[in-house]
Amino acid sequence: MWNAEYDVVVVGTGFAGLAAAIEARERGRSVVVLEKMRNPGGNSIISGGLVAAAGSDAQRLAGIEDSPDRMLADMLAAGQHLNDPTLTRMVAEHSAEVFGWLRDHLHVEFRDGVNQLGGHAVPRTCATAKPAGIAIIRPMLERCRELEIEVRLRSQLRSLVQDAGGRVVGVEVQDEYHFPEAESGETIRIRANGGVVLASGGFARDAGFRRIQDPRLDAYIDSTNHPGATSEGLVAALVCGATPVHLSWIQLGPWASEDEKGWGVGSLFSILAGFPYGIMVDAASGRRFVNELSDRKLRVDAMLQQDRHPVAIVDSGGVSRASTLEQCLKRGVVREYQTLEELARDNGIPTAALRETVSRYNASLEQGVDVEFGKPLLPDLAPLSNPPFYAIRLVPKVHHCMGGIQIDTEARVLHLVTRAPIAGLYAAGEVTGGIHGASRLGSCAIPDCLVFGRLAGMSAASGR
Amino acid sequence: MWNAEYDVVVVGTGFAGLAAAIEARERGRSVVVLEKMRNPGGNSIISGGLVAAAGSDAQRLAGIEDSPDRMLADMLAAGQHLNDPTLTRMVAEHSAEVFGWLRDHLHVEFRDGVNQLGGHAVPRTCATAKPAGIAIIRPMLERCRELEIEVRLRSQLRSLVQDAGGRVVGVEVQDEYHFPEAESGETIRIRANGGVVLASGGFARDAGFRRIQDPRLDAYIDSTNHPGATSEGLVAALVCGATPVHLSWIQLGPWASEDEKGWGVGSLFSILAGFPYGIMVDAASGRRFVNELSDRKLRVDAMLQQDRHPVAIVDSGGVSRASTLEQCLKRGVVREYQTLEELARDNGIPTAALRETVSRYNASLEQGVDVEFGKPLLPDLAPLSNPPFYAIRLVPKVHHCMGGIQIDTEARVLHLVTRAPIAGLYAAGEVTGGIHGASRLGSCAIPDCLVFGRLAGMSAASGR
Repeated sequence: MWNAEYDVVVVGTGFAGLAAAIEARERGRSVVVLEKMRNPGGNSIISGGLVAAAGSDAQRLAGIEDSPDRMLADMLAAGQHLNDPTLTRMVAEHSAEVFGWLRDHLHVEFRDGVNQLGGHAVPRTCATAKPAGIAIIRPMLERCRELEIEVRLRSQLRSLVQDAGGRVVGVEVQDEYHFPEAESGETIRIRANGGVVLASGGFARDAGFRRIQDPRLDAYIDSTNHPGATSEGLVAALVCGATPVHLSWIQLGPWASEDEKGWGVGSLFSILAGFPYGIMVDAASGRRFVNELSDRKLRVDAMLQQDRHPVAIVDSGGVSRASTLEQCLKRGVVREYQTLEELARDNGIPTAALRETVSRYNASLEQGVDVEFGKPLLPDLAPLSNPPFYAIRLVPKVHHCMGGIQIDTEARVLHLVTRAPIAGLYAAGEVTGGIHGASRLGSCAIPDCLVFGRLAGMSAASGR
Repeated sequence: MWNAEYDVVVVGTGFAGLAAAIEARERGRSVVVLEKMRNPGGNSIISGGLVAAAGSDAQRLAGIEDSPDRMLADMLAAGQHLNDPTLTRMVAEHSAEVFGWLRDHLHVEFRDGVNQLGGHAVPRTCATAKPAGIAIIRPMLERCRELEIEVRLRSQLRSLVQDAGGRVVGVEVQDEYHFPEAESGETIRIRANGGVVLASGGFARDAGFRRIQDPRLDAYIDSTNHPGATSEGLVAALVCGATPVHLSWIQLGPWASEDEKGWGVGSLFSILAGFPYGIMVDAASGRRFVNELSDRKLRVDAMLQQDRHPVAIVDSGGVSRASTLEQCLKRGVVREYQTLEELARDNGIPTAALRETVSRYNASLEQGVDVEFGKPLLPDLAPLSNPPFYAIRLVPKVHHCMGGIQIDTEARVLHLVTRAPIAGLYAAGEVTGGIHGASRLGSCAIPDCLVFGRLAGMSAASGR
């Protein structure tokens, strides 16, 4: 009947899944982690490695006052207050704690300083030394090895197995699965004596599924996600009676490059340099059109109303924050110019209009307030005037699924009919819904994955 | 095993359910219609009886040019283009046809003329002679009697019964059910040889369920719907694998009165008189703050940002369009004043500010354009200057659930995993999702219910 047996079966090897596995194993449980791709790390491994932490010692060092309440307020405002405030509060309240867990328990290396990201009231985002999620995934996998946690690659979840009473007692898996060939591999069944933790991520790359909720997001719209960001895990939970929340809230990111596929190397350039230290203009008019540090939804909605692709511009001062500059230049994603005029010409921007936009922006820095768009001005912000100048051409790409299945404060999955937890089933990360409401703020995904991933592991370990 | 047997089992006695029943019966099938409440009509019976029809003869008589394409464009704009454009187009293209079906086939009486409702580019809404959905439901029930369709009251759907292959072959029902007592009545099973049509409506009155999607919509927020607008039918379909679409898009209506519960008599007053022929001001400032004929979401979002409850004001000219005026005055929902000053004082509005708002609005009528808010000005619009004046105090109330289960162009319910129709299951009306996107336009629900209700009946009759 069963091909293998563990206390805890985790589906997914991203931040949430590995956090759950580590917590369950550290509590003495036998654990297997299933990954459908041939490499571990899911979408997490290619993420930006940005971690919002409210009240961290990194903030204290930088003289920034912050609190979980402020972070909660920012998350609820971006979420248009559709968020479940209890769950959202948990992310904010434990954000500094999980940042500490990464740094002190898992020895993840971070760059000094904190970054100001869109929609956050203050700089509160720490960035990994190596500018990508792999800087977190690798130490997590290392810890899994130390703990002798089995990670089974090319193991695709087919369905959750329930007993007669509805308890999830295991999983049916395609073993030796070859993504994305649905019928590849062989079906095996793995028993979970304690519980199954679903951490299978979002469906940003699943054009068929995302179009059900938003017909505009067809296969012609690019996504920042890895190819495996599809909907099977979510669907497997829904057919067991899990409660769908906010499935139609699908986020596009405002910072990715038109000149490369996916997340690429350009996104971090825009996030760390272009938006906080530069400006974004519409190529057709040469004018700014939105607060470059507003939340992602506001920015993307504004971008979609422009006549042409927007361009983000920064000078040699601000560019020092861009951790991926070298790769961006090498791949032609960012271009360098000695004058603004040259930049305008090469990007098809009206030169006079761009010059006027830059002077108006520089003047607003002198006044200490962005009169036009209310962008928060960082204390170390300097006028855009020191060549060389750098430009990146931007296009919105599907980035994050706010929606998913509903969980409670112990990461238990709630049933649609009984409103009670489905026994034996836990979930964390992007497969869950309700924590970010209408729009997730940048760098809040990693705290979300870690807070609820760890909780899911603890709950599954204790059979709560 | 089965207590009764029919070709077609319809769940719900609103517009969609009765339309399905009539069509199936007219094709010679045996039909039963189940209604959980002790009276038929669902939420439809208390609706406003407003029917958008693009290209109707009523429009031609009034000299108004219109087309299904224009109606489609309006519906997609309000829906923020989240709508499934194929399904939305079907509503627009068949709107005039179902209006004709009501008038000519079912002998529903309509008032002369067409009304301008929010979010519609032109006047295209016909209103029943008696100002409520009962003016449509009654002739539909009459037709059911002629056709000897059995309507079983107090029959609550418990679950859809599927055979081993997943085909829906019947329903499990609480007979002699006493709403809302979950355990009342006795369980019986009714076989459906052809199919089950789910037309169980929305969940606007189900505070527990709607809060999953929008935590702000707790039990303290009133709803315009009848008490039976709860989620069991929707949930029964979801647990069979129906695909959820747009569940988190829950609409509040901008026109209901603070001084009565529910939909009441005030809503139609605002819709037919207050908004098209008057103005809406914030009681605290005495100023207008939104185009009174924008779509519901825009209006409600603006209302929620005001300091105090908004008040809609119309004079003796515009009030002639208000079909419910007498009842409104009798119940104190609308009050009459001889002067604007008196109206301001009684409603706590700063008098000078209100006077200025009215003169500015009247001046814009002379210019033929609402400079401030871009409200479309009707040809028969006169300045607000002829006493008596009328005021209604407004508060947003939960009104319509845009979300529900996904159907195809033959009203077949699509399965979440196979993406194919669930054999034997059809749906229509507010229990379905995807047709209105982010925001349903006023008077588009009845065409939606009738177009897809009739289709569902035809599909179930033919076993498509």
